[in-house]
Amino acid sequence: MTQVYDLIDRIFHPESVAFVGVTTSDPFHWTRTFWDSARAFQFKGPMYPVNPHGGELDGYKVYRSMADIPGNVDFAISTVSAKIAPKIVRECAAKGVKAIHFCTAGFAETGEADVTELQQELVAAGRDTGVRIIGPNCMGIYCPESRLSYDTGFNKESGDVGFISQSGGNSIYMIREANWRGLNFSKVVSFGNACDLNESDFLEYMIEDPKTKIIAMYLEGVRDGKRLRQLLEKASRKKPVVLVKGGCCGEAGARATSTHTGSLAGNDAVWDTLCRQLNIIKPNNMEEMVDVLATLKFMPGFKGRNVLLVGPGGGASVMLTDEFERRGFRLPAVTSEIKKELLGFSQAAGNMLSNPIDYSQSMQNPGSMQKAIQLLTQWAEVDFCVGFFRPSQMTEGFLDMVRKVDDMINQAFGASLKPVAHIIEGGITPARQIVAFEMIQKIVAAGKPVYYSFPAAAVALRLVADYNKRKTANS
Amino acid sequence: MTQVYDLIDRIFHPESVAFVGVTTSDPFHWTRTFWDSARAFQFKGPMYPVNPHGGELDGYKVYRSMADIPGNVDFAISTVSAKIAPKIVRECAAKGVKAIHFCTAGFAETGEADVTELQQELVAAGRDTGVRIIGPNCMGIYCPESRLSYDTGFNKESGDVGFISQSGGNSIYMIREANWRGLNFSKVVSFGNACDLNESDFLEYMIEDPKTKIIAMYLEGVRDGKRLRQLLEKASRKKPVVLVKGGCCGEAGARATSTHTGSLAGNDAVWDTLCRQLNIIKPNNMEEMVDVLATLKFMPGFKGRNVLLVGPGGGASVMLTDEFERRGFRLPAVTSEIKKELLGFSQAAGNMLSNPIDYSQSMQNPGSMQKAIQLLTQWAEVDFCVGFFRPSQMTEGFLDMVRKVDDMINQAFGASLKPVAHIIEGGITPARQIVAFEMIQKIVAAGKPVYYSFPAAAVALRLVADYNKRKTANS
Repeated sequence: MTQVYDLIDRIFHPESVAFVGVTTSDPFHWTRTFWDSARAFQFKGPMYPVNPHGGELDGYKVYRSMADIPGNVDFAISTVSAKIAPKIVRECAAKGVKAIHFCTAGFAETGEADVTELQQELVAAGRDTGVRIIGPNCMGIYCPESRLSYDTGFNKESGDVGFISQSGGNSIYMIREANWRGLNFSKVVSFGNACDLNESDFLEYMIEDPKTKIIAMYLEGVRDGKRLRQLLEKASRKKPVVLVKGGCCGEAGARATSTHTGSLAGNDAVWDTLCRQLNIIKPNNMEEMVDVLATLKFMPGFKGRNVLLVGPGGGASVMLTDEFERRGFRLPAVTSEIKKELLGFSQAAGNMLSNPIDYSQSMQNPGSMQKAIQLLTQWAEVDFCVGFFRPSQMTEGFLDMVRKVDDMINQAFGASLKPVAHIIEGGITPARQIVAFEMIQKIVAAGKPVYYSFPAAAVALRLVADYNKRKTANS
Repeated sequence: MTQVYDLIDRIFHPESVAFVGVTTSDPFHWTRTFWDSARAFQFKGPMYPVNPHGGELDGYKVYRSMADIPGNVDFAISTVSAKIAPKIVRECAAKGVKAIHFCTAGFAETGEADVTELQQELVAAGRDTGVRIIGPNCMGIYCPESRLSYDTGFNKESGDVGFISQSGGNSIYMIREANWRGLNFSKVVSFGNACDLNESDFLEYMIEDPKTKIIAMYLEGVRDGKRLRQLLEKASRKKPVVLVKGGCCGEAGARATSTHTGSLAGNDAVWDTLCRQLNIIKPNNMEEMVDVLATLKFMPGFKGRNVLLVGPGGGASVMLTDEFERRGFRLPAVTSEIKKELLGFSQAAGNMLSNPIDYSQSMQNPGSMQKAIQLLTQWAEVDFCVGFFRPSQMTEGFLDMVRKVDDMINQAFGASLKPVAHIIEGGITPARQIVAFEMIQKIVAAGKPVYYSFPAAAVALRLVADYNKRKTANS
């Protein structure tokens, strides 16, 4: 393993952590984020709160300075203001700290000369002392395995997605949303202004990390384009890579990435070409990225363009068909042989003789419906199946029935050997949303991908089908 | 007014209604839908349940046949099975009924020879007797003004959107979703197989109807293309027309419309060209249609491409900027004069000096933030403002603060003379979704459009901006 690998592996698995700048006075203050999260995750090593006011925090002694800490410290999370950040680096160095994460904003991303200088001072302090820096202006490390997090609510289970995110907010969105859809992470890093450790360093690590099976990246700018390109090439040969490039579409986007993380955005066409060449999946936004990750994880190796669509509602069936055909999928027509077979065992199946299957007329006879769907999911011409449900188009009485029927569909789908996905649209009113939430949880528990809208499903499935096809062609 | 206008106006405003086929035995049976809705809406005229078993329903006498009804009946809603539908037409004719809505499915949309013949019999019965038919295979009439509905939960207030929908399910989705976003309807008709009254008849009515200011259409197939074209031309000169064409994108979509409402779908390119020529707004799906309607209604005449984006989160700001720039919008850069003015009254404003505005660093000082936003919304270079909020990317502690801050943003926006829109993304967990629901309700109460995702906002605003621009150019 490389030197970078060892360094970053150490950062993801520190033995002890100092929380520099955590406040004791206000339990809701943002400087408590990392402390509270490490406590909620039950970080196993020593934890040292550091604040010049001293005192006590959750029963822990608060140290007035790094020098006062009795034990060894190998990682520090700093929430001090930008102005004293360089000083903290030197104090940490004296204590033997290997790396510091600076959450603090107010550096080069502001574009103001004096604070840009401050970032340069920070870089100099790191270089002089050998202490490595994550940030500034970022959320740092989420690693369930070593029980470090930047939100108390993230899943505590480890998973196989590694995520390298320049933005803290986008990473919080991603983790929450992915967790909710049954995806867990091996490691996440939000690295912000990348004044020292950058996207390439973390990518070099994720490529080799045995716990990371899928690599996701959110980038705004790049420090060393050539190195990143080489690493992306290596990564994409080894693992699926999904990359969202922020600030891609015009002047204001470039300006926004500069204000956000002090990055130069680069031309979108270049990124598109690069990703096509390397078979890197490039969704347009974070929502699409979660959809793609769920597809990669829960429909491994899924291929082909022939889909069977199943759900209640004629109009909804038409709309869903449009979204799939618009993106190059095909819905094979049900053959006369299958029709005959369906009609052989049930009158109710008579309403379900075409693809898309609108089962709303057959719901009074759920047993036959289930049998019909089982039969259709085994049909050789179909590559994969998608079930859909839109609670908002149901009349009140219908909703309860569909809820029950949906369980049966899931069972029928569960018995299929083909890849299966579900679309559960959100409800409009809180009551309907609860129904949607329940259904989503069941699907996630069954290990299937779930999408929130017709277009979202078609977009993600197409991106992953293309990826799998190119991968097969190249291997 | 034309003969068609008078006929359809009578259908939308019947004096008395017979509910033929409503069951008395099962309160949750679907044949109760129309009866229950008319009761919930407090339909003012006489209501006559009709069922061969007789008995009583909600204190009303159930008549064994149409002939037994003592008073006059001018409109009938039938839920009888397909086989006896032609007989019902003749019985209604004898009673002087002007028009019948047949909800029942199982006619030409099945593609089976015997039931296609049944639909022909139904048409013949209508032609012989002069009774006009809506459907079969549809949900019929929702007209708050005359207190008729096909769902007990639709809004009881009248509005100015007229909606002509071939699909019942898509119309239920549309009405619910539009209601939730502050839109009400003048009249809605779901007309299904269109064996007699069709899309053109209802369009002819909506063009002249003084209560209908915006016309929305969901079509799967067309009976008389030439007549529809002429009417669309007339309609689009008089009112904004928004049209979704189902079954547009391939073989299976055409097959699905045929199975759903027995329609021939027609070529999508033809529809695209037609809509472009007539300046008809053509969204891809029902979700986009609701977004467009909200924009037309709550940002009347909105024009221009220069947008100010305001919300919490650097990463989210970048993503939102991408979606807007991807669709041809511009975010003018904040001028040095405005920067100077902003810095003049507050230090907090120092973090809000660019467009997109990420106010997350200024939330500790909400007063200055509000003042800064007020100043920026008055900025001459900006055509319209969009506020965004994504509850799922907030840490727990942050969420409550943003909730309070959001009220301030809304006030600042409310004071702006420019058109204003909001994006409130749904939350992932029920608790976060409740926060989103609360925010949506406040925005709707303030008479602003609200969208559910970054791309959705950009798509709808672009469609309406283009519409308004062409309208100005043509006038």
